[in-house]
Amino acid sequence: MITINLIGYGNVGQHIEKMLVNLSQFRLQCIYSRSKFVPCSTNLQVVHTLEELPFADLTIISVKDDAIGFISNKLPYENSLVVHTSGSQPLNVLATKNRRGVWYPLQTFSKQKQIDYSKIPFFIEIENQKDALLMENLTQKISTSFCFIDSEQRQQLHISAVFACNFVNHLLMISEEIARKNNIPFQYLLPLIKETVEKIEYLSPKNAQTGPAIRKDFMTIQSHLQHIESEKYKKVYEILTNSIIHTYEL
Amino acid sequence: MITINLIGYGNVGQHIEKMLVNLSQFRLQCIYSRSKFVPCSTNLQVVHTLEELPFADLTIISVKDDAIGFISNKLPYENSLVVHTSGSQPLNVLATKNRRGVWYPLQTFSKQKQIDYSKIPFFIEIENQKDALLMENLTQKISTSFCFIDSEQRQQLHISAVFACNFVNHLLMISEEIARKNNIPFQYLLPLIKETVEKIEYLSPKNAQTGPAIRKDFMTIQSHLQHIESEKYKKVYEILTNSIIHTYEL
Repeated sequence: MITINLIGYGNVGQHIEKMLVNLSQFRLQCIYSRSKFVPCSTNLQVVHTLEELPFADLTIISVKDDAIGFISNKLPYENSLVVHTSGSQPLNVLATKNRRGVWYPLQTFSKQKQIDYSKIPFFIEIENQKDALLMENLTQKISTSFCFIDSEQRQQLHISAVFACNFVNHLLMISEEIARKNNIPFQYLLPLIKETVEKIEYLSPKNAQTGPAIRKDFMTIQSHLQHIESEKYKKVYEILTNSIIHTYEL
Repeated sequence: MITINLIGYGNVGQHIEKMLVNLSQFRLQCIYSRSKFVPCSTNLQVVHTLEELPFADLTIISVKDDAIGFISNKLPYENSLVVHTSGSQPLNVLATKNRRGVWYPLQTFSKQKQIDYSKIPFFIEIENQKDALLMENLTQKISTSFCFIDSEQRQQLHISAVFACNFVNHLLMISEEIARKNNIPFQYLLPLIKETVEKIEYLSPKNAQTGPAIRKDFMTIQSHLQHIESEKYKKVYEILTNSIIHTYEL
């Protein structure tokens, strides 16, 4: 049985705990959390200082990016396998006293919403080749999708994900706000939004582009700009419209 | 039987033709297209000059925004019902010699992709109340979702749709480009993108926001900006990051 310690019990940490429940060969033995209130579902050991952590074959660090290095250095054991789960941090933020790796699940986790973990792609980086199989085995028990990439690729992947998820969500928020202020229920926009995303399974986003900007329909663009109340959203409209126009000029 | 003329056989026009096939009570009798090549599936009359158009109870104008007024004025009949399908044009671009309306299907139409028309929301505006029932009947034969709104609301709805569809697609294109340039197949991002959209059926986009900007994680934001090669995409990243930060400061 391969023992696991989970360090951090925030948004991602709580989802990782759920992923690790009832896996064969792997056993989550201990969670470290600064918070005294840890509502974990299983009867496992919870500690609030790093010194209390028992040795584990694998330690998963899922804390804020700027705490990863510090925490990995304070672990009370050496020569074990330690991975972090951050998309934007390189492998070498981890202290060298343990064997190092990254295990990055590419998904947007909300506390309020359940997720089908089997569809989450995991991006693995591993320092010592002998640990690759262990991470591969663990990942395959959770998901059907994983890939080995290095720190530089993961950084770029994280940027790519910010565009595809965080920024997309913000545009949906702007869209919702404009609809709501004009007494149009946002529900009416959901089929359009779904189709926008479903389309790109068949067409590349570059070929799926529609709308006034790609048509260079400056009459509509001008009219839209006159009708957007918020200066901030007007700026977003302009930048994205220009970016679309320039993309298709090349 | 209510007869229909369809004016325009572009991207949207071709989808409208498909919507009108085999409806009870309504019959598409004639298509006007400037192009000599009209690959319509049914055996209906196709004309290439407006003078040839036979009278119809309903005329659907689905042409470029700046041609709607001109074409509605050149129709060879009066006192009929004429609607356009544009999201951004007001009802009053139509000539007054016919009874006027708007019939706006809110969807992103691609020639290469089939669409379930029954889920498309139609937004109807009608000048004479007596025509409302006809448009309602027609719409209900095609879709389960429709709504009466005025020209000002439709203008705002169109802006809302540009954010939710055209701009979202452009962000997906940027995301795809960054992933591809770093040898990461875009397929790996699809579960994240799907979840981003599925989430907003349960959570408002405002409550669903995740990522470095809402966390005010300036270390990650700085690092991303340093790693984005394209100056254009860097600008998009900055504007959207600032917009997110300011949204949650209020």
